[in-house]
Amino acid sequence: MPKHMKSRKSKIGSAPGTLVHVGDRLSENIKVTLIKYDKENFSKSLLDKIEDCFSSEGNVINWVDVDGLHEIEVIEKIGQEFNLHPLILEDILNTTQRPKIDFNENYIYIVLKMLYYDKKIKRIKSEQISFIILKNHVFSFQEFEGDVFDNLRKRLEQNKSNIRNKRTDYLAYSLIDAIVDSYFDILESIGDTIDDIEDTLMRNPSEKLLSNIYELKREMIFLRNSIWPLRDVLNGLIKSDYPLIEDKTTIFLRDIYDHTVQIMDIVETYRDILSGMLDTYLSSMSNKTNEVMKVLTVFSTIFIPLSFFTGIYGMNFEYMPELHFKYGYLIFWVITVISILIMIRYFRKKNWF
Amino acid sequence: MPKHMKSRKSKIGSAPGTLVHVGDRLSENIKVTLIKYDKENFSKSLLDKIEDCFSSEGNVINWVDVDGLHEIEVIEKIGQEFNLHPLILEDILNTTQRPKIDFNENYIYIVLKMLYYDKKIKRIKSEQISFIILKNHVFSFQEFEGDVFDNLRKRLEQNKSNIRNKRTDYLAYSLIDAIVDSYFDILESIGDTIDDIEDTLMRNPSEKLLSNIYELKREMIFLRNSIWPLRDVLNGLIKSDYPLIEDKTTIFLRDIYDHTVQIMDIVETYRDILSGMLDTYLSSMSNKTNEVMKVLTVFSTIFIPLSFFTGIYGMNFEYMPELHFKYGYLIFWVITVISILIMIRYFRKKNWF
Amino acid sequence: MPKHMKSRKSKIGSAPGTLVHVGDRLSENIKVTLIKYDKENFSKSLLDKIEDCFSSEGNVINWVDVDGLHEIEVIEKIGQEFNLHPLILEDILNTTQRPKIDFNENYIYIVLKMLYYDKKIKRIKSEQISFIILKNHVFSFQEFEGDVFDNLRKRLEQNKSNIRNKRTDYLAYSLIDAIVDSYFDILESIGDTIDDIEDTLMRNPSEKLLSNIYELKREMIFLRNSIWPLRDVLNGLIKSDYPLIEDKTTIFLRDIYDHTVQIMDIVETYRDILSGMLDTYLSSMSNKTNEVMKVLTVFSTIFIPLSFFTGIYGMNFEYMPELHFKYGYLIFWVITVISILIMIRYFRKKNWF
Amino acid sequence: MPKHMKSRKSKIGSAPGTLVHVGDRLSENIKVTLIKYDKENFSKSLLDKIEDCFSSEGNVINWVDVDGLHEIEVIEKIGQEFNLHPLILEDILNTTQRPKIDFNENYIYIVLKMLYYDKKIKRIKSEQISFIILKNHVFSFQEFEGDVFDNLRKRLEQNKSNIRNKRTDYLAYSLIDAIVDSYFDILESIGDTIDDIEDTLMRNPSEKLLSNIYELKREMIFLRNSIWPLRDVLNGLIKSDYPLIEDKTTIFLRDIYDHTVQIMDIVETYRDILSGMLDTYLSSMSNKTNEVMKVLTVFSTIFIPLSFFTGIYGMNFEYMPELHFKYGYLIFWVITVISILIMIRYFRKKNWF
Amino acid sequence: MPKHMKSRKSKIGSAPGTLVHVGDRLSENIKVTLIKYDKENFSKSLLDKIEDCFSSEGNVINWVDVDGLHEIEVIEKIGQEFNLHPLILEDILNTTQRPKIDFNENYIYIVLKMLYYDKKIKRIKSEQISFIILKNHVFSFQEFEGDVFDNLRKRLEQNKSNIRNKRTDYLAYSLIDAIVDSYFDILESIGDTIDDIEDTLMRNPSEKLLSNIYELKREMIFLRNSIWPLRDVLNGLIKSDYPLIEDKTTIFLRDIYDHTVQIMDIVETYRDILSGMLDTYLSSMSNKTNEVMKVLTVFSTIFIPLSFFTGIYGMNFEYMPELHFKYGYLIFWVITVISILIMIRYFRKKNWF
Repeated sequence: MPKHMKSRKSKIGSAPGTLVHVGDRLSENIKVTLIKYDKENFSKSLLDKIEDCFSSEGNVINWVDVDGLHEIEVIEKIGQEFNLHPLILEDILNTTQRPKIDFNENYIYIVLKMLYYDKKIKRIKSEQISFIILKNHVFSFQEFEGDVFDNLRKRLEQNKSNIRNKRTDYLAYSLIDAIVDSYFDILESIGDTIDDIEDTLMRNPSEKLLSNIYELKREMIFLRNSIWPLRDVLNGLIKSDYPLIEDKTTIFLRDIYDHTVQIMDIVETYRDILSGMLDTYLSSMSNKTNEVMKVLTVFSTIFIPLSFFTGIYGMNFEYMPELHFKYGYLIFWVITVISILIMIRYFRKKNWF
Repeated sequence: MPKHMKSRKSKIGSAPGTLVHVGDRLSENIKVTLIKYDKENFSKSLLDKIEDCFSSEGNVINWVDVDGLHEIEVIEKIGQEFNLHPLILEDILNTTQRPKIDFNENYIYIVLKMLYYDKKIKRIKSEQISFIILKNHVFSFQEFEGDVFDNLRKRLEQNKSNIRNKRTDYLAYSLIDAIVDSYFDILESIGDTIDDIEDTLMRNPSEKLLSNIYELKREMIFLRNSIWPLRDVLNGLIKSDYPLIEDKTTIFLRDIYDHTVQIMDIVETYRDILSGMLDTYLSSMSNKTNEVMKVLTVFSTIFIPLSFFTGIYGMNFEYMPELHFKYGYLIFWVITVISILIMIRYFRKKNWF
Repeated sequence: MPKHMKSRKSKIGSAPGTLVHVGDRLSENIKVTLIKYDKENFSKSLLDKIEDCFSSEGNVINWVDVDGLHEIEVIEKIGQEFNLHPLILEDILNTTQRPKIDFNENYIYIVLKMLYYDKKIKRIKSEQISFIILKNHVFSFQEFEGDVFDNLRKRLEQNKSNIRNKRTDYLAYSLIDAIVDSYFDILESIGDTIDDIEDTLMRNPSEKLLSNIYELKREMIFLRNSIWPLRDVLNGLIKSDYPLIEDKTTIFLRDIYDHTVQIMDIVETYRDILSGMLDTYLSSMSNKTNEVMKVLTVFSTIFIPLSFFTGIYGMNFEYMPELHFKYGYLIFWVITVISILIMIRYFRKKNWF
Repeated sequence: MPKHMKSRKSKIGSAPGTLVHVGDRLSENIKVTLIKYDKENFSKSLLDKIEDCFSSEGNVINWVDVDGLHEIEVIEKIGQEFNLHPLILEDILNTTQRPKIDFNENYIYIVLKMLYYDKKIKRIKSEQISFIILKNHVFSFQEFEGDVFDNLRKRLEQNKSNIRNKRTDYLAYSLIDAIVDSYFDILESIGDTIDDIEDTLMRNPSEKLLSNIYELKREMIFLRNSIWPLRDVLNGLIKSDYPLIEDKTTIFLRDIYDHTVQIMDIVETYRDILSGMLDTYLSSMSNKTNEVMKVLTVFSTIFIPLSFFTGIYGMNFEYMPELHFKYGYLIFWVITVISILIMIRYFRKKNWF
Repeated sequence: MPKHMKSRKSKIGSAPGTLVHVGDRLSENIKVTLIKYDKENFSKSLLDKIEDCFSSEGNVINWVDVDGLHEIEVIEKIGQEFNLHPLILEDILNTTQRPKIDFNENYIYIVLKMLYYDKKIKRIKSEQISFIILKNHVFSFQEFEGDVFDNLRKRLEQNKSNIRNKRTDYLAYSLIDAIVDSYFDILESIGDTIDDIEDTLMRNPSEKLLSNIYELKREMIFLRNSIWPLRDVLNGLIKSDYPLIEDKTTIFLRDIYDHTVQIMDIVETYRDILSGMLDTYLSSMSNKTNEVMKVLTVFSTIFIPLSFFTGIYGMNFEYMPELHFKYGYLIFWVITVISILIMIRYFRKKNWF
């Protein structure tokens, strides 16, 4: 069973809010990047101490990206400074969360899944990402380095479409949008894989194909489980009157919502297609058996009766008049050939070959 | 996998509202047609500059039909003139939308799918069509030339049932109605195809049939996905108190709504029928295997024991008294014929042939 | 595919409210019957001119039954006199409607399906019936002569249970009730057919049976589609505060509603039973294959080795000592019989026969 | 098809409220029992005339149990005395009702199914029971004598847990509770049957088993249909502010509601288990076929080639040097034994036996 | 059928609130443990008399854990002292409850299932646990000794995360949390079992595997039935304005709710995976049959015609010229070898081996 489908929670009975990193330690070092910007300025820096990002002047927006979750003190310090609930901190560290949203007094907590498609092993890999959205700060916590935000960083630097004029809610929207857009890429890769399998299915259905279809079906279950709760997250954001979310951002969120619905449509369609392919595979197997059976039957029904005839004239009875006919042997051959021809015609009529 | 089932979105991380045409460039040139009418007048003209349609006098209604989406400036100019939201413009250009409706301050945006059934390759082709409904303008954006509105254009010209006395909401209704009516045509074509397949299924089920059923099932999934969201679109129009939609238009919209429900019923029925045909196919395959098996078994069980008997009297033992009986050979034949008759009776009783 | 499952609508783009008869012309002549009654009087007459039924004195109730839909002028005249919406007239003429209800300013429009079970061809036939319920008139439009209202006509004539004291809403209720009651008859006939199939299934499952089950399943899909929307129709009537529907009629409508739910229950049960029969059929086919296989295997495994033995002593080697043993042939027979007995025991133990 | 799954209604077009007993006449005579009780007194008597139970003094509660529904006058008299709606009387007599509840001005009408499990024929038998709950009367109408209320009668007589201090609503609760409790008994019997089938399935799956599973599945469909609507009945009672239902009775009704949900859970679980058993049966059949095939194949592939060899040396060519070798026959045997051993090893490796 | 899926209720018609222990008597003696704590103090003691825990001073919280349900007087005394409804006491003793919650005037009643996974027999065992939450008392009733609260007891003793500063609602939360956490453990064990089965499925699918999959599927049905109602329980707690539940506890309850949803996701995923494995198993069986068939067919179609040829030259016709050719025998061998080679090539091309 692929890793990502397992439940990983092994701290039964420990106090709620106990900070333990649940998940694989996927990166060596923790890396904290701070992007600071307002209408005029943009700066990007690697932080040594997490405290360096806590202060905030005027309307400057601070996007703090934390790659790696195994240094618990970093998360603890952020929690103390911004007064985050211990259960939220616990959720950030537990990488087996379901996507969800939590509105709190002065911040919003969102947890999502970033997905990557590894074309070599034809597997989806998953990385949990959590956001804390505050008035002037957006924190993003990732399991390891590397994400889908490179384009967004460029747009921030170049201030395309005046993204720097907007507040943290728009930054959060942009981050979620980038993640949802990346889902389309994954679906496209999977679509290609399905195409490949379909071609093979028509040409030469092998047993390996079956396990491929089966694995893809499982990936679709995983995708659905990862993306489905996103609808509730977005709905929560759109419907809330939370002061951090400005009205003009709502239309953008609704746009992502539409994309999510579209993605779920595609996922369901893929699942239907894969089920159809399974049916086709099974019936093509049954066709093959039928084919084999026909070959066996044609040969057996032609030659078994003929062998019986040869058997008859191989018997050693003293009084077998036919054996002494001059044209006995010839007649035998004539009968043989005629029976073969009759049989062949019969099978032709039955469409057996 | 048919084109229309793929996700096509490859601009991850680009700013929202960035205008890029997503989809195949299906027509050479963009073509803009303007139909202007009021109670007394009707005129139809091909526009060179999109700006020519912006002005509007009195109650004159302007239906601007844009065929081809690859000249982004045209869409941009319309957007600036009528103050359309950038995300709406992005949606018009992205031809992988799901049918939906968006109410905005001074206009309604609707996106639908026009479907065509190509009888030769037995495939449904899909074209995205977007509407912008304003006070005096209706814009329709199509991917390529050719649509299902020819009858409507004639009715406008001849002012049948006083269509020219009505406002843009009624024009929009007429456009949607023409699209939904065309769905019935497609269903009729598919119904004919299903009839054909059913006839073949009863006469001579071949492996090609299976892939035909399978493809039709996929087309039904596609149809459902294209038509299902239409219900929400129509519901949105009916339930809204939007000033552009007059009360007396609502009864017409409810009529289309009924048609849509009827279409979904037919689609579901077709899906059920196709599933039933798949079951029939599979069980007819299993019947065939059974048939083949029976032939093999009848021949084998009759002749294998007989061959054994011939084998016995083909042995070269010195002391085999039967070989020297005068009527040995005759008795052998008698026994043989009797066993064959018994076997045939046995198989008759078992209903094997 | 049975007629009744096809979509028939071929007037794309024609103006809404254009009156065209969609459907087969099932009767030669149109026939209009007028039944007039109040507490004291009852009269029944065949009308030549539709206008004869337009007038109405005092509390007299007029039930106008129109058999045959191909004379569009008749429907047009009724529409003009009673101020019916053009879309309603269009719906009356289009016999591919889904059951539905429409409340209008001064009348209610209901469209239903009357179903008949043709026992010979084991098919359900369907006839669309529309009702227009006004203050003193009830119009019923049928596709052809013959219906399920004969009992009702008798009750009206004899004023059983004071039916003549009641208003048009009660007449409408009685009409719908007669239709729903007739559904029970159809279900009973289908139940009998299912019983027959079940008996045959246990005794002698043939391939014909499969197509019978398959056809019945399709009839159930059709039944469900015809009856399911009826619940919404009745719910609409019960929940409405429409002035034409008196409070004391509501309890009767709820009674029909209960019947409809009961019918849907039976339909679903039948569908479950038919699915179960399909499973049984398939597994009985697989059992049969197994049976055939066993016969083949028993014969082959007994006689193929024995034939090998006969083959041995049919060889012409010069030095084969056994051939010259005095009791060689006897020993051969002893070995043969013993092996046959062992084999038979082995198959017995395996429960093969 | 079991009786209880058929629709029985054959009075199309007859006036609503016409009293006809629909169902089998299951008892010879109608039997009316009256139980009268208040805090101090308890009496039980068989009534000759139904009128004897109509009067009621003070707080005395009258439970009138009518066994047998074929004497229509009895039901008519009750209807007249207590002013029951004709449709209610019709429903009491029609034993093909779905469980339901009806609140009327001064009484509540409830119809339920009493179920009995006949262990011999492994069938559920069903009896319809209707209740009319009034201020001082509870009427129960059963199809035949014998019910699940014996314990309740004892508790009334002995005034266990002060049941006699309570009103008709509590009596009605106690009656429904007894019925629901009896469902648990049926489920336990069915659970035992499922256990038996499961044991047989593992030991010796026969074709009879299949029909057993199939019948049980059908009984589960029937159970679900009989019990499912009960939830609505109970919900109706709990949610109603009907004056007859006291607040403190509601907690007891909620208790039955919980039991009903639990029963539906068990029914669904049984259905899942039966489906699983069907799958197991089918795949064990397929395993068996495989087993048979292997035996056939092992024998055939070993002996058919060997027979070919014996055939060779049975030929009568003049120049066959091997025939004259001194050790020819010995060599033949050596080759034969070696091939057999190789074949056996090959099949062992393939895990065929 | 596993015990835990049976309905156990055998007291039809007995008065509601009759205290009878329904379930297996799983422990010898009843054991009552009292944990008393407030901010400063903590004490743990084994009680001889249940009455010893009834008194309560100031803010001291009493957690009374009752292991064993067969001493009815203990439950009765608690019921009298704290004024519990008789139906609640009945539910505590009936161990076949569905998880549910009941709000009463001065206490909350919760019933849940504690689950244990027995790795040896690969079965889930279930223990019912009921909670009564009062102002200063929490009662927990378990079927037998041993539970999942050891960690919680330690945290209480050591006052980790100030658990002792909180009220009974937080204690109840902690108890439920420990139970839900233990579900994750069970899912992990089952996940491991699924992994094992999957490995075996790919390597060597045997019939035993099928019954393993089938049993696991049943365990999943049981898990779902045990956990699903928990959502309603938690929802009830979160949504209630019940005075015992403080607002700040609600966020913790929502955390458990999220976990429950996550667990249901995993359970559904496992069910999907198991269904997929069943499909794979069945199609691998069908593949195997095909494989066997091919071996049989290859051998038969090669050697049956050849045997026919040997048969020909084993005949004893007087005039068979070939027998006297000098190179007849050689030619025979040449023809034989060539036919074998042609057959092998043919089967290679058909991909049969």
